[in-house]
Amino acid sequence: KGWGGGLGEKSPGRLPARPRQPRGVCRCLELVKRQLFRVGEDWYFLFVLGVLMALISFMMDLIVFRLYEAHRWLYQEVGDYLVLKYLSWTIYPVAMAAFSTGFSQSITPHSGGSGIPELKTILTGVVLEEYLAIKNFGAKVVGLTCTLACGSTIFLGKVGPFVHLSAMAAAYLGKMRTSVMREYEDKFKQNEMLVAAQAVGVATVFGAPISGVLFSIEVMSSHFAVRDYWRGFFAATCGAFMFRLLAVFNSEQETIAAIFKSDLKIDFPFDLPETFFFMILGAICGAIACAYLFCQRWLLAAVRENRLTGRLLATDKPLYSALVVLLLASITFPPGLGQLMASRLSMKEHLISLFDNRTWGVLAQNASVPPAVPGDPQRLWQEWSHPSATIFGTLAFFLLMKFWMLTLATTLPLPAGYFMPIFIYGAAIGRLIGEVVALLFPHGLRVEATTHPIVPGGYALAGAAAFSGAVTHSISTALLVCEATGHLAHVLPVVLAVLVANAIAQKCQPSFYDGTIIVKKLPYLPRIRSRHMASYRVVVEEFMDRRVVAVAKGDGFEEVLAALSATTDGEYPVVESAGSPTLVGTVSRARLVAFLQSHEHPRAPPGPLQEKPVMLQLSPWTSLHQAHHLFELLKLQHIFVTRYGQLVGAVTRAEVGHGGDTACSYLSNGVIPPSPGPSPCNGATSLAVPPIPNLCRAP
Amino acid sequence: KGWGGGLGEKSPGRLPARPRQPRGVCRCLELVKRQLFRVGEDWYFLFVLGVLMALISFMMDLIVFRLYEAHRWLYQEVGDYLVLKYLSWTIYPVAMAAFSTGFSQSITPHSGGSGIPELKTILTGVVLEEYLAIKNFGAKVVGLTCTLACGSTIFLGKVGPFVHLSAMAAAYLGKMRTSVMREYEDKFKQNEMLVAAQAVGVATVFGAPISGVLFSIEVMSSHFAVRDYWRGFFAATCGAFMFRLLAVFNSEQETIAAIFKSDLKIDFPFDLPETFFFMILGAICGAIACAYLFCQRWLLAAVRENRLTGRLLATDKPLYSALVVLLLASITFPPGLGQLMASRLSMKEHLISLFDNRTWGVLAQNASVPPAVPGDPQRLWQEWSHPSATIFGTLAFFLLMKFWMLTLATTLPLPAGYFMPIFIYGAAIGRLIGEVVALLFPHGLRVEATTHPIVPGGYALAGAAAFSGAVTHSISTALLVCEATGHLAHVLPVVLAVLVANAIAQKCQPSFYDGTIIVKKLPYLPRIRSRHMASYRVVVEEFMDRRVVAVAKGDGFEEVLAALSATTDGEYPVVESAGSPTLVGTVSRARLVAFLQSHEHPRAPPGPLQEKPVMLQLSPWTSLHQAHHLFELLKLQHIFVTRYGQLVGAVTRAEVGHGGDTACSYLSNGVIPPSPGPSPCNGATSLAVPPIPNLCRAP
Repeated sequence: KGWGGGLGEKSPGRLPARPRQPRGVCRCLELVKRQLFRVGEDWYFLFVLGVLMALISFMMDLIVFRLYEAHRWLYQEVGDYLVLKYLSWTIYPVAMAAFSTGFSQSITPHSGGSGIPELKTILTGVVLEEYLAIKNFGAKVVGLTCTLACGSTIFLGKVGPFVHLSAMAAAYLGKMRTSVMREYEDKFKQNEMLVAAQAVGVATVFGAPISGVLFSIEVMSSHFAVRDYWRGFFAATCGAFMFRLLAVFNSEQETIAAIFKSDLKIDFPFDLPETFFFMILGAICGAIACAYLFCQRWLLAAVRENRLTGRLLATDKPLYSALVVLLLASITFPPGLGQLMASRLSMKEHLISLFDNRTWGVLAQNASVPPAVPGDPQRLWQEWSHPSATIFGTLAFFLLMKFWMLTLATTLPLPAGYFMPIFIYGAAIGRLIGEVVALLFPHGLRVEATTHPIVPGGYALAGAAAFSGAVTHSISTALLVCEATGHLAHVLPVVLAVLVANAIAQKCQPSFYDGTIIVKKLPYLPRIRSRHMASYRVVVEEFMDRRVVAVAKGDGFEEVLAALSATTDGEYPVVESAGSPTLVGTVSRARLVAFLQSHEHPRAPPGPLQEKPVMLQLSPWTSLHQAHHLFELLKLQHIFVTRYGQLVGAVTRAEVGHGGDTACSYLSNGVIPPSPGPSPCNGATSLAVPPIPNLCRAP
Repeated sequence: KGWGGGLGEKSPGRLPARPRQPRGVCRCLELVKRQLFRVGEDWYFLFVLGVLMALISFMMDLIVFRLYEAHRWLYQEVGDYLVLKYLSWTIYPVAMAAFSTGFSQSITPHSGGSGIPELKTILTGVVLEEYLAIKNFGAKVVGLTCTLACGSTIFLGKVGPFVHLSAMAAAYLGKMRTSVMREYEDKFKQNEMLVAAQAVGVATVFGAPISGVLFSIEVMSSHFAVRDYWRGFFAATCGAFMFRLLAVFNSEQETIAAIFKSDLKIDFPFDLPETFFFMILGAICGAIACAYLFCQRWLLAAVRENRLTGRLLATDKPLYSALVVLLLASITFPPGLGQLMASRLSMKEHLISLFDNRTWGVLAQNASVPPAVPGDPQRLWQEWSHPSATIFGTLAFFLLMKFWMLTLATTLPLPAGYFMPIFIYGAAIGRLIGEVVALLFPHGLRVEATTHPIVPGGYALAGAAAFSGAVTHSISTALLVCEATGHLAHVLPVVLAVLVANAIAQKCQPSFYDGTIIVKKLPYLPRIRSRHMASYRVVVEEFMDRRVVAVAKGDGFEEVLAALSATTDGEYPVVESAGSPTLVGTVSRARLVAFLQSHEHPRAPPGPLQEKPVMLQLSPWTSLHQAHHLFELLKLQHIFVTRYGQLVGAVTRAEVGHGGDTACSYLSNGVIPPSPGPSPCNGATSLAVPPIPNLCRAP
């Protein structure tokens, strides 16, 4: 029996010696697994989110492409009968848009529009629970696919809805694992995840990880924690990588490359004096963006107020969509006005043609123009050339018509993004300016006629970045345009143009998303725009709400009932007693109601109110700027004000907004000596909204 | 007399009609001017800052280049006497470094090092007034120029000092215009300006505006206001534009282009399976970064503690510099070990050679190698080839030696940046891995032998970004490397490598800058690394300092004197009376001292203490995470805790740090049931500092 038996006797029940090694390996693997799964437990979650959204984005692109091809085929197959051609051109998008509206609105009324304004509101701490419900997901995916299948007829994009979809997915995935976490941590985590989800949304549409993160930060948040950075980057990189990878697997590309790859030459991208033209381009983009923002907000309100359209929008949304799309489709009908607007191109083809590395003006002069072949990227520009109008004419006409068509399209109650059309519009502005510059200086700007001609494609890049940046009030579009085209040589002039455009737009108009928030009357914390000295002297005492309904610690049935009927607040302050109002905590409305219900009859001795401790309180001498800062940073909804421990008031977002006005009226009333500069109140109010009826800040 | 007289009679004293038009124009111009100068009054200030720093950066580059050329010329002119060669090689940098140390230290002891750790501390709200004094400026500029003139011998860069210089310039410019502003606004503004200044610092060294902004945000701040975004972008763009413009005016380039322009081909940058190698590269970079961070911090402490070096550093800094540089220069002596380390190249040449678009392995096999011509960018790689060692040997030797040489160089007390050497080191790691991959797969990774060979230059890009990102704990180095080389096609694998490297480094070590803050014992708010559920249950009550020295409203001479001698705090809480400690305000130490001095003799009746109102106070039930959040967000130094208005304690950064430890000891003591996961305290303390003596957090 020898050794084996001896070992067996020594340690009965012990396994033979050999498996020890594997057990060590197992333990090691276990350790590695634990380590991997301990990094905040976030990374695999983010990975799943990125990959999932990339899959959806790619599948949607494929389906949209097929649907679009079907339409194109139909249009070509009906032959030369103009009526048939017209019907096939218009009925298809009308049906698509009507279905998109009807389907998505029937499932949930929240699925229309881009969703970014609502997400922005959620990120400031307001709870719009319905908005992230998973049932919106299907409605939005199907609706968006139909919207996109209409192509350039209704000229809408997919960035906004993808951000929304991504946030919904993140919220749903998040719910599956937060059952054990406390409320605070849960809220904390959800916020982190939403920030990452936005980045995924942008990244999976443009395949641009870095600018996806930056754009979502700029558009969404007022403050950003560097701690959350890696989450956004990781999720966006996974998404963008997967998205481009699928394109390779689908044999669209040989390897991973930019989505709108441009072949602009990089040896001599632009001459120094051209910087001047880029800045002019930025100024033009900024001015047009202001006009666009104004008109868009005006139309959005006007459509709601007009009796006819208002009733249609309230009761019969699909019909409204159908009528508007019929109008848009009729105008883009290729044998009609459409031939002057390159309307046979899809959105993506529009962008690729505008970023073309050649000069259209030169191409149009030289070439004996063969009939355009749809789909050949080298010939896309020919859609823009028209025998009677030059390319300048078609570009100008495109800009003129699309301005109001795009404004009209944003009133449609279907799931759609508004970033991509703005991006293309900007590229068209840039292309027009670039072609004009190339016409004026055919041999470049140098005196010694070297071979450095103007590259109008570079202007198109700058125009796209500047216009979309001005409309959304963001600077990172400069990087987005570089990542989406894979072309970095123009980065400096592009950033300059974006800065100029932003300076003009931010001065005159709220951003596209803020404007929508204002029109939709969502809760909103306006910026204190006055940086005047006197605004730093306004303190909480001057604008706080002094009429706070509180319950005392020993309150009985009647007092609580009185408090409950006095206001509809969700949370009531609890004070020591009515005589000495020392703030001791807060109690939720639900708990007060439960307290009432627990009493058999009104005269029963009151049980003690269980109050929650107060985490943070303001003092009456906190300044307006500090209070605003706190609301923004800590995503507060309301906060109580105490003086020496005694409850003296409360501040909500509305009060902070009024505080901004107080600062302003202060200055104009002359309580504080007038400043040496221009009137500080001119545009110094909390938000510079032009005087349109019913566009005031939400109460 | 006719019309003229008539007009004259009608309006005596009125100017003739013609000048009206100009006056209207004048008024219009005046209006435009006002509008321009009203945009926060910041933009021209930022413009001046950007242009100024770009000028300084460019001038410094020019002077350093001349000094470096002079050294090269000297070294070649002395002929073939080995002793002379050795002396000329070593004496020059020794003299430069000794002068740099002596000059800068004699003017101000704050001018050594990079300055980023101190700036980071300033941005958390700590006042280190001296650090931004303008007298540091000259010392740092002259010292840095001499340091850089030593070239690759001591292997140090200029990013950190430029960030510091830029911040000093911003603080100085800011002082010139803030005479009318109040304290709060002033502090506010200064912070905004410092954030912009950091971006300028990075942008004017790399000519990279976007990543300049992002890198400075990641390295410097814990939270970032999107409001400050445009300032950073505007200033950085002005700086980068000017910096590249000067290069054009100096005829270095024909037009504005990237600073380390690479010609990597963009048609097929990398094959999909290569992503795997990029991730391995990221992991290697992360591991080496951990080792480097550990050694660097250890050496920094060891040099101070060692009797000999400690005394040298305390009393005779130039001698210490001279000795260290003599050692470094002897090792890099080209006829000696230097020939295995490409030590004849300057820092910039190192980087350009490592980013070469060709495969060195192939070049070394094919070419009949002619003698290297210094300065020809096409032949720089030959410095890396050695007849007896292959390029793999030289690269590996370079990495091995530079590891400890760089660690040693960071202990030098002269103005120097530590980012650039790390960047180059990472590029060398990437180049080595890339060359190995190219050797293993000479025809690329596809089975059908197409013409898609491996591009080792792409690995060098990824290595540079991943290693520098891991050492500084930042992700935006991925963009920095793209902007600095003007090559965007590799962006996805580069971001992946950076993320992998960061995951490893952030897990194991504090960042380079945090490490320096720890070693230098600067005030520091450690991160709460435990995301365990129990850590959310720790509240302020458990870690606050209960022994607060307060003065009562009616206190007289003796009580105030007692309070002043009890602690050295800068601010004292004022309570209603000793019996009922209701917090009514705070009073500064200086004011208390003045109060004492105003009394003729101790028995005089006390005048009222003039207290400042309290802006914000915590409650004992505020959670640890919330308190930490507030400290980070509002840049607090200390805050009082009140319960029902009564002062019960105070919290400073130290207490918040202890709070993190409390959370941890809680878990290990089993007060809260142990978690199902691994021991939560393993690495869950406030900061994972390895157990080195005297490396604990500053009190």
